[in-house]
Amino acid sequence: MSDLSPSSPDMAATASLADVAIVMGSRSDWPTMKKAAGLLRDLGVNYEAQVVSAHRTPDRLVAFARGARERGIKVIIAGAGGAAHLPGMIASMTTLPVLGVPVKSKALSGQDSLLSIVQMPAGVPVGTLAIGDAGATNAGLLAASILSLSDDGIAGRLAHWRQAQTDSVPVTVED
Amino acid sequence: MSDLSPSSPDMAATASLADVAIVMGSRSDWPTMKKAAGLLRDLGVNYEAQVVSAHRTPDRLVAFARGARERGIKVIIAGAGGAAHLPGMIASMTTLPVLGVPVKSKALSGQDSLLSIVQMPAGVPVGTLAIGDAGATNAGLLAASILSLSDDGIAGRLAHWRQAQTDSVPVTVED
Amino acid sequence: MSDLSPSSPDMAATASLADVAIVMGSRSDWPTMKKAAGLLRDLGVNYEAQVVSAHRTPDRLVAFARGARERGIKVIIAGAGGAAHLPGMIASMTTLPVLGVPVKSKALSGQDSLLSIVQMPAGVPVGTLAIGDAGATNAGLLAASILSLSDDGIAGRLAHWRQAQTDSVPVTVED
Amino acid sequence: MSDLSPSSPDMAATASLADVAIVMGSRSDWPTMKKAAGLLRDLGVNYEAQVVSAHRTPDRLVAFARGARERGIKVIIAGAGGAAHLPGMIASMTTLPVLGVPVKSKALSGQDSLLSIVQMPAGVPVGTLAIGDAGATNAGLLAASILSLSDDGIAGRLAHWRQAQTDSVPVTVED
Amino acid sequence: MSDLSPSSPDMAATASLADVAIVMGSRSDWPTMKKAAGLLRDLGVNYEAQVVSAHRTPDRLVAFARGARERGIKVIIAGAGGAAHLPGMIASMTTLPVLGVPVKSKALSGQDSLLSIVQMPAGVPVGTLAIGDAGATNAGLLAASILSLSDDGIAGRLAHWRQAQTDSVPVTVED
Amino acid sequence: MSDLSPSSPDMAATASLADVAIVMGSRSDWPTMKKAAGLLRDLGVNYEAQVVSAHRTPDRLVAFARGARERGIKVIIAGAGGAAHLPGMIASMTTLPVLGVPVKSKALSGQDSLLSIVQMPAGVPVGTLAIGDAGATNAGLLAASILSLSDDGIAGRLAHWRQAQTDSVPVTVED
Amino acid sequence: MSDLSPSSPDMAATASLADVAIVMGSRSDWPTMKKAAGLLRDLGVNYEAQVVSAHRTPDRLVAFARGARERGIKVIIAGAGGAAHLPGMIASMTTLPVLGVPVKSKALSGQDSLLSIVQMPAGVPVGTLAIGDAGATNAGLLAASILSLSDDGIAGRLAHWRQAQTDSVPVTVED
Amino acid sequence: MSDLSPSSPDMAATASLADVAIVMGSRSDWPTMKKAAGLLRDLGVNYEAQVVSAHRTPDRLVAFARGARERGIKVIIAGAGGAAHLPGMIASMTTLPVLGVPVKSKALSGQDSLLSIVQMPAGVPVGTLAIGDAGATNAGLLAASILSLSDDGIAGRLAHWRQAQTDSVPVTVED
Repeated sequence: MSDLSPSSPDMAATASLADVAIVMGSRSDWPTMKKAAGLLRDLGVNYEAQVVSAHRTPDRLVAFARGARERGIKVIIAGAGGAAHLPGMIASMTTLPVLGVPVKSKALSGQDSLLSIVQMPAGVPVGTLAIGDAGATNAGLLAASILSLSDDGIAGRLAHWRQAQTDSVPVTVED
Repeated sequence: MSDLSPSSPDMAATASLADVAIVMGSRSDWPTMKKAAGLLRDLGVNYEAQVVSAHRTPDRLVAFARGARERGIKVIIAGAGGAAHLPGMIASMTTLPVLGVPVKSKALSGQDSLLSIVQMPAGVPVGTLAIGDAGATNAGLLAASILSLSDDGIAGRLAHWRQAQTDSVPVTVED
Repeated sequence: MSDLSPSSPDMAATASLADVAIVMGSRSDWPTMKKAAGLLRDLGVNYEAQVVSAHRTPDRLVAFARGARERGIKVIIAGAGGAAHLPGMIASMTTLPVLGVPVKSKALSGQDSLLSIVQMPAGVPVGTLAIGDAGATNAGLLAASILSLSDDGIAGRLAHWRQAQTDSVPVTVED
Repeated sequence: MSDLSPSSPDMAATASLADVAIVMGSRSDWPTMKKAAGLLRDLGVNYEAQVVSAHRTPDRLVAFARGARERGIKVIIAGAGGAAHLPGMIASMTTLPVLGVPVKSKALSGQDSLLSIVQMPAGVPVGTLAIGDAGATNAGLLAASILSLSDDGIAGRLAHWRQAQTDSVPVTVED
Repeated sequence: MSDLSPSSPDMAATASLADVAIVMGSRSDWPTMKKAAGLLRDLGVNYEAQVVSAHRTPDRLVAFARGARERGIKVIIAGAGGAAHLPGMIASMTTLPVLGVPVKSKALSGQDSLLSIVQMPAGVPVGTLAIGDAGATNAGLLAASILSLSDDGIAGRLAHWRQAQTDSVPVTVED
Repeated sequence: MSDLSPSSPDMAATASLADVAIVMGSRSDWPTMKKAAGLLRDLGVNYEAQVVSAHRTPDRLVAFARGARERGIKVIIAGAGGAAHLPGMIASMTTLPVLGVPVKSKALSGQDSLLSIVQMPAGVPVGTLAIGDAGATNAGLLAASILSLSDDGIAGRLAHWRQAQTDSVPVTVED
Repeated sequence: MSDLSPSSPDMAATASLADVAIVMGSRSDWPTMKKAAGLLRDLGVNYEAQVVSAHRTPDRLVAFARGARERGIKVIIAGAGGAAHLPGMIASMTTLPVLGVPVKSKALSGQDSLLSIVQMPAGVPVGTLAIGDAGATNAGLLAASILSLSDDGIAGRLAHWRQAQTDSVPVTVED
Repeated sequence: MSDLSPSSPDMAATASLADVAIVMGSRSDWPTMKKAAGLLRDLGVNYEAQVVSAHRTPDRLVAFARGARERGIKVIIAGAGGAAHLPGMIASMTTLPVLGVPVKSKALSGQDSLLSIVQMPAGVPVGTLAIGDAGATNAGLLAASILSLSDDGIAGRLAHWRQAQTDSVPVTVED
């Protein structure tokens, strides 16, 4: 996967080469969300990554969510913390699969993020992953899994990744 | 307060006679939110009430939030349950004061609603009230209190209401 | 979608006509999980539904999870309550997308179910939905959304369903 | 906004030039509450700030709360931690809008502060913001929003501040 | 204990024959708080009971708390629910022992009441009992225990009550 | 208060000069519990302090609890963390007032300690204070308050301490 | 298992024919705890059942716990609710395996019971089961499992019970 | 206890000299779980320790759990964090006693681990210990206690260990 490049600021309005869009409510979420990016890169999945704040940039939110399917995005990974409205609001404006990553928050360690993302009302789904790094990694894996349904290359690399993970688990507790 | 009438469907696009807009994510929130309406009616504050679902009617949300200040609304009361994004998303698109009412949810009794509403990031405030009926009543009171800063009539009726409340508290525990 | 029929006991070993498998830890989870089934039926998605208890029928669990991809299943919806291990254990044995539904539990109202399902370690993802009925409905929707990526018929019906949902939200709070 | 000066000890008994009073239960709350002060300063809103402990200085509490409206205060921002009674007790003695900031507590990270402030009974409202710094900032913003209803200068500066915030959100996740 | 009579409305200003004052934030707390009263009656401890709402009757609160020691009250039992400020605010205005009873609240089952009462800052103590009926009963017992330190009659009756309680615990699980 | 000395190992069997006994489940609780000791020393209340582990030294627990009243102890302050059984078990074996201090625990920050202490069943009361240092300080204050009912010296010193505390609260937020 | 009979009141002092002792803090716990009894009866394990209140009958507690091993008891199942001290206090006085069952409590649904039982300090173990009926059933199963290590009859019946359970899980979601 | 050695990778398929198997979901759990190992070593109980990840090595899980009883293992101690499925899944495939240790997790401090382990449905028991180090130590103690029922050597050493623990608890709070 050669030409994977970070999103340009105006990408919301242009066709994307990416299958997965990673968005997050704040640049400070990137240390968490880049685990999703890293996983996708490992599996050879094209992605783009950008900051879309539901609260501070609602226009960008609407433009992103409304345009994603048309731009060719297939899966959206959205991470946010606290009163985390980003994943659910994106899901309200697209029929694409939206995966939510609750970023660990300062006071409540992500319990607020988790409930704000997972407790969506019937009608608008967000597939929610674990709080923090593990959740971001798994959002990448789940996106790849979804894409693998119609992409044998990804399916193969995903199966290989999972097997390698299994093989790497030591038996002994200490070296 | 003579001509208080329920909102018409197209009111989002027309000037409002109301000072307070009460919105809620679902018609099933009305039994809670009508406590706010009742309080405002008691204090002679004009209000309108309508359903605006952040997740199921995002366009209505944008139209409502973007248009509220221009339509003459001064305070917005927004109630929602579960992953309650309505108050915060309205707040992201207006500089009007937004008051949030966490509606009691089925599985988590409103703990999810509360955290989804109150834990807003710096930059976009929602003044949050208690879970359920008490919160809805108090949203009405707080809206009236805000309006009372520049409306002596409301100020007087509010002071009177509060005094009457004080006077009505019995001393004895049983009749 | 005419001939949708409930799974036969031995279906774990045979090819499936279904794209989505709905499994649950106990027959008592069906009143919740049938919301997923109903949604899929509405959207014309073939599904099968069966009881697979991670704790009481671990062999069935292994057979189901190991065989699902080969049998042609594309998305797995797994619901369970309490120490809800079913979604995560299925995810450990397949690279298919697994969606988890935390069924409301007796003592802790599904807080245990939710944490047991969503807090998966990095490497094995479960896309988790809300506690209870809303989560089951949304699992159906998310499964359809995933399938819609390569099935224009489902994509169309899903878009239609979502639009109909939007159109059905009343503006007025009372009739 | 030239002559903003910290409150003098006896200000509770004298007219205030400030529109907003920031009070807090302990001087140790200042690192949190000064976010509210900073925001108000940025928006050109006159404020005063002082320590009023509901538990350790109940007389000061009564004097402050009873006198605030008469002294010309328009909005009260009250921050406290743990069994945080300050916002609610002030609200019990004034009809001014009271905004509560749950200060992060040591053992329970502000969960106690939040519930003690937000769960007010019907009849005495406190508009509650998020736990900690974000809440203090937002209390300042919400106070400005309330004042903006009858002060075009504040309204303009608030709209500008919000726009600048929106403009400052980067799109890219890394420089 | 013959002449035990319910408090008269103006008792706050007159000497009390009671050793224990039971106060509660609302008449609706009486079904809980009367367990304290019943216990005290059983132990022959004089008590009075009245409604004192911290939020709705702050003057009554101040009058009660400031006057209690002088009126001869020795122990105060205060029950309240939700953002339960009554026990702590009384404690802020008296050096008498104050015992707090968290009344079970509607949405949060008394978790808010408990934290609002027990998490007092250093300097102003409230001895907190369990949520609900058990807490009210135990507040009565603890008050009696405190009084028993200088009243041998109460000490004897308390010891007897405790022994009777012990004797009444059956060994068998069914009759 | 001259001759305050730490308890000797065999003090459980001998008369005590102390009015208050401070006990704790582990020596590691002392950094918390010494706040109670410090307060009592400041108020001139005689106390003793020792380690009594409900779980590791049940005989010591029984000896201490059974013997306390006879030895002249008037109030017991018991601190413990985690599954904190010490305060409640002491209360089960004495009619003295028992005050419980939930020590902050490692994993759950004292939430387990708090619930284990405060949620006593009807019949055996423990007056519970806040988690951690504040709770220990307040246990000392509440013990002094109880003793003050029949000791004018303590009453005077307590009133003075409380007044000094009030006087020491600064008004300004910064020097 | 023919001659299984309920415990006589004085059994604490006499040898027991039972291998398992089921104790509970209150007779009101029996509807929960009898699930353990029923399971043991099904597996042909001799048991006795009695009420032992840690708080109301501390002497009975000591007698029971100290005497259990000598009387021939091999496993103790202890159920209690709220500030549930019974399992831990028994464990403090015996080296027998103690299994704890958190009984669902009124206000907090057994969250207090669970933490009070499971969060034991290092040195005194209680093997804790789920809140409520499931926990009681599983305490019976775990006791049988422990006994099965040296009793082939129980081992066989346990294996058979488990297999029957597996066989009884239906595949279809509806009949 | 001479020849205690760490498990070899293939031990799952060979007879074990160990009575207790300690397994954990990740090598990062060893700092916690080695407390169990240390305790067993102190009590002269043979054990083996290995990593078995329910999610990353499901085959190893099945092999381990299915083979444990036959290999001569008598008690299994399983530790895991987050969505901790290891103890429950082992319990689903063996009739041996399974003891679960909730390892402290990053975001939720082990609350997720605890609920995932303890809230097992009726039919498949896991005896759960405290979160973290204390739980691991106690798992070792409880395993020894179980083995002590048919091994007088262990019984003696366990009684001695417990007595030594009691003797080591200091009375004084400071040296």
